[in-house]
Amino acid sequence: MSRKDAGNRDLMNRRRVLATAAGVGAGLLGMTVKGTEADSTRVQGDAPSTLGARSPFEQLERKPLAGVVSLTPLERLEGTITPADLHFERHHAGVPRIDPSRHELLMHGLVERPLAWSIQELRRFPSVTRTCFIECSGNYFPRAGEFSPPHLVCGLTSQSEWTGVSLATLLREAGVRTGGTWLLAEGADAAVMSRSIPMDKALDDALVVYAQNGEALRPAQGYPLRLLLPGWEGNTNIKWLRRLEVTDAPAMSREETSKYTEPMKNGSIRQFSFEIEARSIITQPAHPAVIEPGWQEIRGIAWSGRGRIARVEVSTDGGRTWEEAALQGPVLAKAHTRFRLPWKWDGESTELLSRATDETGYVQPSLKQILAVRGPGSAPYHFNPVTGWRVQRDGELRFSPTG
Amino acid sequence: MSRKDAGNRDLMNRRRVLATAAGVGAGLLGMTVKGTEADSTRVQGDAPSTLGARSPFEQLERKPLAGVVSLTPLERLEGTITPADLHFERHHAGVPRIDPSRHELLMHGLVERPLAWSIQELRRFPSVTRTCFIECSGNYFPRAGEFSPPHLVCGLTSQSEWTGVSLATLLREAGVRTGGTWLLAEGADAAVMSRSIPMDKALDDALVVYAQNGEALRPAQGYPLRLLLPGWEGNTNIKWLRRLEVTDAPAMSREETSKYTEPMKNGSIRQFSFEIEARSIITQPAHPAVIEPGWQEIRGIAWSGRGRIARVEVSTDGGRTWEEAALQGPVLAKAHTRFRLPWKWDGESTELLSRATDETGYVQPSLKQILAVRGPGSAPYHFNPVTGWRVQRDGELRFSPTG
Repeated sequence: MSRKDAGNRDLMNRRRVLATAAGVGAGLLGMTVKGTEADSTRVQGDAPSTLGARSPFEQLERKPLAGVVSLTPLERLEGTITPADLHFERHHAGVPRIDPSRHELLMHGLVERPLAWSIQELRRFPSVTRTCFIECSGNYFPRAGEFSPPHLVCGLTSQSEWTGVSLATLLREAGVRTGGTWLLAEGADAAVMSRSIPMDKALDDALVVYAQNGEALRPAQGYPLRLLLPGWEGNTNIKWLRRLEVTDAPAMSREETSKYTEPMKNGSIRQFSFEIEARSIITQPAHPAVIEPGWQEIRGIAWSGRGRIARVEVSTDGGRTWEEAALQGPVLAKAHTRFRLPWKWDGESTELLSRATDETGYVQPSLKQILAVRGPGSAPYHFNPVTGWRVQRDGELRFSPTG
Repeated sequence: MSRKDAGNRDLMNRRRVLATAAGVGAGLLGMTVKGTEADSTRVQGDAPSTLGARSPFEQLERKPLAGVVSLTPLERLEGTITPADLHFERHHAGVPRIDPSRHELLMHGLVERPLAWSIQELRRFPSVTRTCFIECSGNYFPRAGEFSPPHLVCGLTSQSEWTGVSLATLLREAGVRTGGTWLLAEGADAAVMSRSIPMDKALDDALVVYAQNGEALRPAQGYPLRLLLPGWEGNTNIKWLRRLEVTDAPAMSREETSKYTEPMKNGSIRQFSFEIEARSIITQPAHPAVIEPGWQEIRGIAWSGRGRIARVEVSTDGGRTWEEAALQGPVLAKAHTRFRLPWKWDGESTELLSRATDETGYVQPSLKQILAVRGPGSAPYHFNPVTGWRVQRDGELRFSPTG
């Protein structure tokens, strides 16, 4: 289709009308011949297999970066579930190889009964399933250039249906003693990654999970056990979980001082900034897609660590006007929520923006608003600015960090 | 743990108490040494990768059977999402290899405007995401013996988060003419699999889907396009969809006469029995698991093609008494719903049963009730009997088909 005749087309303009009965016959015949690589109706297909592979026409992959992360290709995904092999990864000393039959979870410290559980023992407890996102608090790349696709803007967020045992259940088993107000959670990786978790969160909605999208956790997500703290920054969701120590104060472990704190404008340092604030991104259309004038659907995801997404507004004119996008239900708390808005591009340059509001009333800020609070020394943690895509007259899209 | 001391253990009895402070230290040290294959804290782990593989300790696979199906390992799964590579497959002439750039969907017949769409054109339409199961109507194996695990009882049901375009949208584009009361849906496989679909269903909740659990459909599930008829028997969800013809009557195609009809007791044949009736199965514990006395959680899935699951009752005494299981929310319509019930096994032989009721009030029948209606000539379609697991004193479980 040339761009010139696009203006004459209606909402569902990407079609070819087969006008006559003869046309239908020819179209049908043509489809049979050219609709498949050979003619798929004349060749016996592949036999049933033990594992269903992807089509060779779908080359999906995460993007490894800097030796410590790989990014989820958000622009290639639909709906809200991230396939397990495309879930982002971030680790501080690589992905350990763990034999589950030798792995144990120890609970000790300020408890009545120090306990250790095998994986099989944990699987016998009452189980809970919950769909939620995990996002790295460092999910912002200050140097993302205009040629960045969505995964280079915020590809450190992914979503799964997780299953495991409630941490409150395990704490009841051990019996928390007076003064037990924090937990130190420790992983079995070579970084011995550890974070201090307030007891309130542990007793609220924390899970010790062993399954992800129906199957066992993948190694990059913590196999065989992971702490799941719905809505809290990714690094607190300790992977390869092996130890929970009930304490009366935060442990001030390496990763809660050397990283994961935010200098503020007044010179103070914000620490234990656990909750992920509301954020959104348009994933389609986005760089490197090239669009044509006419109707298309703007699609993206929005999420908040504080609860449900209440509203996503989209601007197709660089922020002058905003329209409310449709949210795909069921809208779950602390979960990626798919938003959509039909849009008819007139072929002129413009900018597409999205802005999320969660059920607490929190509104995703602009970069300018964040910097006004955080100052020039800002570390790239908990950066959730409104970002955009500049649409060029040639149909190409460019990342716009300032929203 | 020996079975003898099981009676003394409480709900969370699968634990080892570390009684002293010294014990804690020893346990911790012991765990570090034997808790991993080597000591995973002393070895740099694997670098980030493009695709996250499964742990080598988790050998998951579908079970190919009879050259035309492969079965989802229900007993190995948690939650409700089936990983795409474990989604069951059933095909009549193998899985075709289709180049999506050459694939088109044709709509013709009793329409104002015959149309053809490419995959890219379909992706520009307003999209819809829905999580639901697909079950083969032949998901019953009359010869499933007592050593059958759940996948051999009903492994032809799986669940995904599907994304695509509403069929009603496409029908509005083409404009259905007077008398257009049926659709013939046709696939591009070597069976040219085709089924007649009433227009009411097409306009209700039918989708033409291109994505499954976030990514493009897998070939075994219809890549690049599949008709999705939520709650209707699997074979009507035409895979490799290439043609939709609006008609004024069912086409009486091969697969709606040679298969997928049910002889009834009175000598008549039931045809176009589209809806999947409510069903359930306990997936844990189940053959080939071996259980120990004490507390564990009975887990399973329930589903109905007619709407939401309202209730799942579980009997742990061979049907004498029934207890209501907890349902994991959100409970979605026409979707696998996870149910759970804590159970303390006393070590005696018994039988575990589950029985689903959907929101229409339909109650999953016994095999005897089905045979009373269907007679001795019953074809194995739309068989959804209550089934059970006989628990032996040695902790082994045996499939029990009569419920």
